[in-house]
Amino acid sequence: MEHSSPEDPTYRAAVVDLLGVLAYGELTAFVRAAVDSDLAPTLSLKSAMAGLANTEYVQYSQLVEHMRSHGIDPEVAMAPFVVPFAAYHERTKPKGWLEGLVKAFVGDGIAKDFYREMSAFVDDDTRDVMARALDDAGESDFVVTVVRDALKTDRTAAGRLALWGRRLLGEALSQAQAVAVDRDAMSALLVGGGVDLAEVGQMFTRLTENHQRRMALLGLAA
Amino acid sequence: MEHSSPEDPTYRAAVVDLLGVLAYGELTAFVRAAVDSDLAPTLSLKSAMAGLANTEYVQYSQLVEHMRSHGIDPEVAMAPFVVPFAAYHERTKPKGWLEGLVKAFVGDGIAKDFYREMSAFVDDDTRDVMARALDDAGESDFVVTVVRDALKTDRTAAGRLALWGRRLLGEALSQAQAVAVDRDAMSALLVGGGVDLAEVGQMFTRLTENHQRRMALLGLAA
Repeated sequence: MEHSSPEDPTYRAAVVDLLGVLAYGELTAFVRAAVDSDLAPTLSLKSAMAGLANTEYVQYSQLVEHMRSHGIDPEVAMAPFVVPFAAYHERTKPKGWLEGLVKAFVGDGIAKDFYREMSAFVDDDTRDVMARALDDAGESDFVVTVVRDALKTDRTAAGRLALWGRRLLGEALSQAQAVAVDRDAMSALLVGGGVDLAEVGQMFTRLTENHQRRMALLGLAA
Repeated sequence: MEHSSPEDPTYRAAVVDLLGVLAYGELTAFVRAAVDSDLAPTLSLKSAMAGLANTEYVQYSQLVEHMRSHGIDPEVAMAPFVVPFAAYHERTKPKGWLEGLVKAFVGDGIAKDFYREMSAFVDDDTRDVMARALDDAGESDFVVTVVRDALKTDRTAAGRLALWGRRLLGEALSQAQAVAVDRDAMSALLVGGGVDLAEVGQMFTRLTENHQRRMALLGLAA
């Protein structure tokens, strides 16, 4: 897809924003997964959740390194996203281990889909580093088994977790919208890429469809 | 130092215990550091604390891999230490960021000194993997600067944190003693290594001295 020249200040600002939001997203996902690992009912699940957290940290480190090597201050790039992420996590505090698991799988899934969509509008170098940060190498696969097993024995879990998944989608989209309104350069990236309103609508449809696919994988109604 | 043959079941049980306690210690240190990173007042400190957590995770992974390659089930090895660690962390919940930092530095320091002492009684192969797991590669050095800076501006912090450090030492030693009483093989390792009561006393003196050195490094009375 087309994109502006890397020398264009608006384009550069958009890239800084994208790398910043992705890096801060990984850092908070790391913290949340580590916190949730504390609630795991077995040592084996605690270890698996810690492994998931570690993957997020490694991806965060790679993004920080990339930004530094490209003259971008990672802290300046991440700073605008501290408040929106805090708001999202404050509004979606998991009650217990299962909700935490679903949030790690479904919430991070929505966020990563959004970043993947945005990466269509950047240069190859930026897209490569984003792709590496977005590849979870199957670390979250264990979530599917654990949630499906829990649904077999806990009769009320399916309804509760289905509602929880809808809540996560709603909160994630509303924060994404708030960020997009606030960060002009990111919106300009879409406009500069020749994206019209209809296409933005299609993007949101794709995000919702992928969300439904993930919920179905967990055995939950979306 | 002398040690029993690797085929001796009591010796093997002691090695399993040592690797298990060290691995579970790293896993809980990882979780605690990640949780504390959430309280960091700046992005840069959050990132440094997450880096410290990540080091603990990597060391945990190395120990798990070593156990698996030596026919030891890591979960079975770690299981006896879940309750003592939970008791220690429950009794030493940091109130705020600074107490968490001091706990990460001073509490983990005591634990690691204890494992280093114990590693004198095992075979070279086990001692090597323990040494790798105990080397923090300077990841916690930032704690010294942060605590010293905080002491300059917060007049009540020095007294509070000095008390906190004493509390951490007391709780750590009392849990270590509980573990030693419960795990016969570990005690047998000391006895088998020709250690008498006087030498155990000297070991505790060394642990206390190292603790005092760490407190002094932070600018705190021990």
